[in-house]
Amino acid sequence: MSWIQETYKEGLRFGLELKAQLFSGQSDFQKVEIFESTKHGRVLLNDDCFMLCERDERIYHEMMAHVPLSVHPNPRKVLIIGGGDGGTAREVLRHSTVEKCTLVEIDKMVVDACREFIPSTAKVFDDPRMETRIEDGLAFAKNSQEKFDVILVDSTDPSGPALSLFDHQFYADLTQRLTDNGIIVAQGESVFYETEMQSKLLSITSSLFPLTGIFNFTNMTYPGGLWSFTWASKALHPIKDLRAGLKLGPMFYYNEDVHRSAFNLPQFQKDALAKWIKI
Amino acid sequence: MSWIQETYKEGLRFGLELKAQLFSGQSDFQKVEIFESTKHGRVLLNDDCFMLCERDERIYHEMMAHVPLSVHPNPRKVLIIGGGDGGTAREVLRHSTVEKCTLVEIDKMVVDACREFIPSTAKVFDDPRMETRIEDGLAFAKNSQEKFDVILVDSTDPSGPALSLFDHQFYADLTQRLTDNGIIVAQGESVFYETEMQSKLLSITSSLFPLTGIFNFTNMTYPGGLWSFTWASKALHPIKDLRAGLKLGPMFYYNEDVHRSAFNLPQFQKDALAKWIKI
Repeated sequence: MSWIQETYKEGLRFGLELKAQLFSGQSDFQKVEIFESTKHGRVLLNDDCFMLCERDERIYHEMMAHVPLSVHPNPRKVLIIGGGDGGTAREVLRHSTVEKCTLVEIDKMVVDACREFIPSTAKVFDDPRMETRIEDGLAFAKNSQEKFDVILVDSTDPSGPALSLFDHQFYADLTQRLTDNGIIVAQGESVFYETEMQSKLLSITSSLFPLTGIFNFTNMTYPGGLWSFTWASKALHPIKDLRAGLKLGPMFYYNEDVHRSAFNLPQFQKDALAKWIKI
Repeated sequence: MSWIQETYKEGLRFGLELKAQLFSGQSDFQKVEIFESTKHGRVLLNDDCFMLCERDERIYHEMMAHVPLSVHPNPRKVLIIGGGDGGTAREVLRHSTVEKCTLVEIDKMVVDACREFIPSTAKVFDDPRMETRIEDGLAFAKNSQEKFDVILVDSTDPSGPALSLFDHQFYADLTQRLTDNGIIVAQGESVFYETEMQSKLLSITSSLFPLTGIFNFTNMTYPGGLWSFTWASKALHPIKDLRAGLKLGPMFYYNEDVHRSAFNLPQFQKDALAKWIKI
């Protein structure tokens, strides 16, 4: 029996039983691998870290997309930084108000490999509402003149190509890309292991936005199970402004009660991050 | 580098880096092992399954104890079936109303090994309010004449010594051990992998109690992260009857918002279990 295995920080390890390797490549940015697991569908790993697993990817993608898009009163233009597997875009386009979803992924190999081997997320790239740009999200945030209603930072962990996506300059630039009542959501790392990084990210967003905080979800695949998103807005409150009763079709994880509950943090996390949360 | 590793069902595996083995024994009921991990404190495994890890055990134990004890208006007598590591009892005794906590653990080896190697949970056995009985919880539920305000079924997984703790007869007997406005909480297994077992358990409790359901928490150590408790009561509603503002001292995970949110299930779980939930 062979395993697809991630050795995470602090002596913690997670694995899925391997059926077959489907793709392996080294891009200019990272190692990209796709495996077939025995019971969890196909799996994407970048630099030996689990990015996506077909059995539970809907959890992360539903929570990243539907929380902000159910809060914004009329999301028409959405920007995704990263998200080259397509899962977040797929969920974004379930909102009928969305006219255009611009996805800026630095690594063409991720998009190409997912289009070939993980169509369950990547077939979204054929949707005419998608504008897919293979370029540096950092440069796009700085140089674009466009404004977006919702910005989703669907990045890998803060190392390698994604390191600068956890910096003040990037968020200052994103602020310029956001409409006046827009909302940003960013992948926020492990609740159990990344309090320090979350503190840093929230200190940045709270210096730029009147409303900011964190919300959680649990999946199988990211080590430690409990994972977070950081959010920030100039005007929108993620619970008070929730538009109840949206018809989005069948969900795996997300519903309105889960939406509201996601903002109720475990006590240790609340204690560690309270000073940055403005809600 | 060596690992303390559990191979769970459906090709999923979880591991913590090993520092040293502290105890290994084979009791009449199961294999009992205690390890020191490098970054997660001490760890108890029964039959190769993670039971307790010092770094996150407070999550499970706080949620098992404080949800029902904060709902019962005056919990004086508490029964724990299983729970030989002492963690649940430790949390129970933080409620000043509790006069007696009866713990019925079938496996003396678990209690003895934890008393020696995991005092962070097992030192509770020295508390004068504890009545610790090394006997079969099934027989105790059937033969005891006592009544309890809160009953906590802190069992291992439904195999080996704990298999009958997931049966109708056991819950019928527990009903006789419960005061008229009492509440039962039972370890409810993995949210992602054990829907069928949860259906079975809820079909039993819903045939015996007017109020029953499930609530969730997330920890690091139980495979898949997201885990559940089943609850049942003749009279108490776990949210409407929550006594707000209890002074219980510092918590790691539990707070009143977490308490309320725990009953908001992910959509797939709600879909699978809705017909059994009476709340």
